Amino acid sequence: MLLRDLGEWELLKRLAIYAPPGQLDDDAALLVERAGRTLVVNTDVLVEGLHFSDATMGPADLGWRAAAANLSDLAAMGCQQVVGLTVGMVAPGDTPWAWVEGVYSGLSEALVRYGGVLLGGDCSGGAQRLLAVTALGHLGRGAIRRGDGRPGDALLSTGPHGLSRLGLALLLQELPVQSGAAMIPALAERAVRAHRRPRPRLDAVAALAVSQPPHCPWRVGGTDSSDGLLAAVAAIARTSGCQALLQRGALPLDAAMAGLPEAENWCLSGGEDFELVLALAPVWAQALVQVLPGASLIGELRATEAGTTPATSVLWQDSDQPVTGSEGWCHYTKKAAPEDGLQ
Amino acid sequence: MLLRDLGEWELLKRLAIYAPPGQLDDDAALLVERAGRTLVVNTDVLVEGLHFSDATMGPADLGWRAAAANLSDLAAMGCQQVVGLTVGMVAPGDTPWAWVEGVYSGLSEALVRYGGVLLGGDCSGGAQRLLAVTALGHLGRGAIRRGDGRPGDALLSTGPHGLSRLGLALLLQELPVQSGAAMIPALAERAVRAHRRPRPRLDAVAALAVSQPPHCPWRVGGTDSSDGLLAAVAAIARTSGCQALLQRGALPLDAAMAGLPEAENWCLSGGEDFELVLALAPVWAQALVQVLPGASLIGELRATEAGTTPATSVLWQDSDQPVTGSEGWCHYTKKAAPEDGLQ
Repeated sequence: MLLRDLGEWELLKRLAIYAPPGQLDDDAALLVERAGRTLVVNTDVLVEGLHFSDATMGPADLGWRAAAANLSDLAAMGCQQVVGLTVGMVAPGDTPWAWVEGVYSGLSEALVRYGGVLLGGDCSGGAQRLLAVTALGHLGRGAIRRGDGRPGDALLSTGPHGLSRLGLALLLQELPVQSGAAMIPALAERAVRAHRRPRPRLDAVAALAVSQPPHCPWRVGGTDSSDGLLAAVAAIARTSGCQALLQRGALPLDAAMAGLPEAENWCLSGGEDFELVLALAPVWAQALVQVLPGASLIGELRATEAGTTPATSVLWQDSDQPVTGSEGWCHYTKKAAPEDGLQ
Repeated sequence: MLLRDLGEWELLKRLAIYAPPGQLDDDAALLVERAGRTLVVNTDVLVEGLHFSDATMGPADLGWRAAAANLSDLAAMGCQQVVGLTVGMVAPGDTPWAWVEGVYSGLSEALVRYGGVLLGGDCSGGAQRLLAVTALGHLGRGAIRRGDGRPGDALLSTGPHGLSRLGLALLLQELPVQSGAAMIPALAERAVRAHRRPRPRLDAVAALAVSQPPHCPWRVGGTDSSDGLLAAVAAIARTSGCQALLQRGALPLDAAMAGLPEAENWCLSGGEDFELVLALAPVWAQALVQVLPGASLIGELRATEAGTTPATSVLWQDSDQPVTGSEGWCHYTKKAAPEDGLQ
């Protein structure tokens, strides 16, 4: 059995037996330290040709992105304070120093913006450029777990989805001429920025704490939408043993993007938006929307019905039809993942 | 300027400006947590063709080694308790699952032996197999730093050096026929084991604490010998602003290896022995040798003389001639590093 036949979902399932039960279920790992403080740890690998390319971003963008993607996983776990990063960098010997300098400048920019320092790392030669970043942070008021959603929870997105995929399309010039030509410059700029300089939503974790209603215990299901909004909702639904219902009219789209024919698909499956998708008590979700500009309610969780399969874990609320996305990506085949778009 | 022209020493120096002052000077990073406990963090990258190959070790050996190399850096910093690892694994799609299974089995074996759990990680496709491992642990009684050696300190090695390089030579069948033929089987077995299953010397850190003489404050210079004994001694001497004097008659060699013509060179520069090399008060060093079988005194530190250069930072005690090694390895050129053998 080769990795490309196994797929990443099955691979992660098989690797889970080497870790304590449930340890690999979430975006990041929690370590309870003395004095009640909890450390959050996450590792991400970015490989040239799969996760980035010179065609779509410069080295400083890449450094920012590598940091931001990792910090997004910390935020998705409930982290409010970044401690720092270690960076494993692999690059062939003919890589210019200027590239390395750009990458570390971008990493530093993100650390200045979001807190934390470069803690250490390792450098090596290799066939291909890649970054393996480990981020460390401290948990805020409580953890956010994929499996902590419950029937009756509201589903909330901290911001619009699809912008990063639009940015990629613009950078790769893959957009049909009429869409590209009609695009307002401000949207194009926003989209490219979303792709190159994503923001980890540590601020949303702070807003979550601020908006927690009195007498409402801390229980928040959630993950980030690095693999796409649909993948995030599906992961919460399945891990929480629920079905998710999405409101088609409430898809979190940038308003200026709504006219594009690709808008709905990219919103659901474009990926790399790095927003948080949360499942929580409706009263809390309403309160969070009040204090977090850009956040919106997108649906709800309900108890799983008999016969629910992975393919029916996310349904349209109005029609009860499965929500399908078209753009999953499998890192081992360089092809769209046939099954469910989970990376 | 390309990375291969820059060299790894200069590269690390340039990257240091992106981290707090001194942050990248040591084997691992220290994070002071609440309640006085200190976390130790280290990241290592192992790339196929540079750090490992199917020709010399199976996947379970590789997994063990990846864990052990990281834990060795934790030990070199003064860590006594392992918390766990995150693993970033990159492998092409045509990699068999059996290889991945072997790697994670080896990692788990090392964690069972030395403590800690698999905390998390990430998997991706890529052109080349590689592992990026981040290890977390807790500091024991105090930190061990490269720059904490002082003139008058004894230099101590926690075990023999050169065995791992001998093991590699045997596995690559690169040993001259007369040496190979004359080798006693027990030595050959020990050497191959040293290469495939190195031991991180967390036990030596415990022994260091046990042997600390009353009224002798905690101050221990040191590093591990993953890059070779000479590189370790040179790193301590230079970072501590001292010169190191090595006793030729006291080189830490496996007794059975002494007859090999390559013995001295491999002892100094073979690398990957993963012992600790320490600089500490002579009374403490004597006490440590008493409680730690295999440990031995190998020389001392003295005040730097005027005109000391990197090339004269390590001298033979009897002749005051520079100690030179032949086998540095530069990851960016795939050639012996001309300068000083530091990886």
